[in-house]
Amino acid sequence: MTDKKKDVLRETDDEARLLARKLVRASRYAAIAVIDAETGHPNASRVLTGTDVDGVPVILISALAPHMAALRADPRASLLFGEVGKGDPLAHARITLKCHAEEVARDGDMHNRIRQRFVTRHPKAKLYVDFPDFAFFRLVPAAVSLNGGFGKAYAPTADDLIIASPAMKELAELEPSGVAHMNTDHKEAADLYAKAFGKSKKSGWSFIGIDAAGVDLACGDELMRVDFPQPLAKIEDLRPQLSALLRNAREIT
Amino acid sequence: MTDKKKDVLRETDDEARLLARKLVRASRYAAIAVIDAETGHPNASRVLTGTDVDGVPVILISALAPHMAALRADPRASLLFGEVGKGDPLAHARITLKCHAEEVARDGDMHNRIRQRFVTRHPKAKLYVDFPDFAFFRLVPAAVSLNGGFGKAYAPTADDLIIASPAMKELAELEPSGVAHMNTDHKEAADLYAKAFGKSKKSGWSFIGIDAAGVDLACGDELMRVDFPQPLAKIEDLRPQLSALLRNAREIT
Repeated sequence: MTDKKKDVLRETDDEARLLARKLVRASRYAAIAVIDAETGHPNASRVLTGTDVDGVPVILISALAPHMAALRADPRASLLFGEVGKGDPLAHARITLKCHAEEVARDGDMHNRIRQRFVTRHPKAKLYVDFPDFAFFRLVPAAVSLNGGFGKAYAPTADDLIIASPAMKELAELEPSGVAHMNTDHKEAADLYAKAFGKSKKSGWSFIGIDAAGVDLACGDELMRVDFPQPLAKIEDLRPQLSALLRNAREIT
Repeated sequence: MTDKKKDVLRETDDEARLLARKLVRASRYAAIAVIDAETGHPNASRVLTGTDVDGVPVILISALAPHMAALRADPRASLLFGEVGKGDPLAHARITLKCHAEEVARDGDMHNRIRQRFVTRHPKAKLYVDFPDFAFFRLVPAAVSLNGGFGKAYAPTADDLIIASPAMKELAELEPSGVAHMNTDHKEAADLYAKAFGKSKKSGWSFIGIDAAGVDLACGDELMRVDFPQPLAKIEDLRPQLSALLRNAREIT
């Protein structure tokens, strides 16, 4: 990196880290860049995305797509997250991750967990998730480039996107029942969170994921990420943390 | 390509070719995949896009962006076009081009032409287009992969995206005054084209480009491409062709 390039980078602060996490964790899709297995040519395509409980992006792809062969031959990949709305496309925040792809073996706890989280986020994926030519890959971030709009370039670390908590494994086991419980007994919390922390004017939000660093919400096509102030240190902190968020949300709205 | 992959490809028909051209020619932006100059890692980022008069995509990028160094070291790149709207992101059409990047020298007719077309498409780019660290690249397509949504995969040829016409050079010289003339004396034609051929309900469309294969329209952030039934054989065909489109548009609307 030249000195000139360093000059244009802002120091990564908490706001930038939060934006980086939201762009990845609330995404529906990304552009993935891979190196073509046969020609070595770079290739860009669109993939549906989710995250694993440790914040690592996951994708579900078909062996018919060229990126599957590419990733199996060379696990280096890049993901570009960030939706473009009205106005200048370059004024909208986006984030590029350089990643190493790890194919998820079809049997085992990791596959079950990733599958469960992914189809909760993308219900239509249930139609093909179990087809034999489909596979999940974890795309473990190695380097990050965040662009929050003109003059707002940051270089967060890969660690800034990773969720580390001693409660992670236990929480993952609890997640399906926890999500169901929240949607059955505390559905109003999702709307309140979305209104307070995401300025949503919609109602009908539901919980689609709970991990050690926060919750994922959905309303139709729209996804939202609400991060806890700190990742949970132990599983017993989940309930008080959700209640604290709710009190906070009620104060804001 | 395996037989299985071939099986899922549909035969490229005129409708697919039209969709491919619209995705590229009416784009505001794309994801670009390049190979990092230092590490060889693929990298995905967002770029504003336009087209040259021959239909070749062009980008305007800064030397501060990593893709400039990448393209100078290895001209192989891939562009992913196609905006995502409501519903499943994979139900929205997109196209991947494998390209070879050619940097556009800063002086000369080609630069003037590309610059003029680009800033007409992206007026805000006037603010930085002449900065010394910015440069245009033509991204000449070598291979194409079109995905019109589930089960609608096509492999058009690079030639399907290229505009070939003996009138191209003359038209390029006429373009700035032609665009100005259409917007001054025939502005209603833009709205009519947009309504008839793009089902637009907006008014206030204007002409931003004219080439041998059709016209580019804009209304705020929105772009639209209207292709002629055939590329013009000679420059004298432009006026009758625009009039024929107008009659056609009046019949439809």
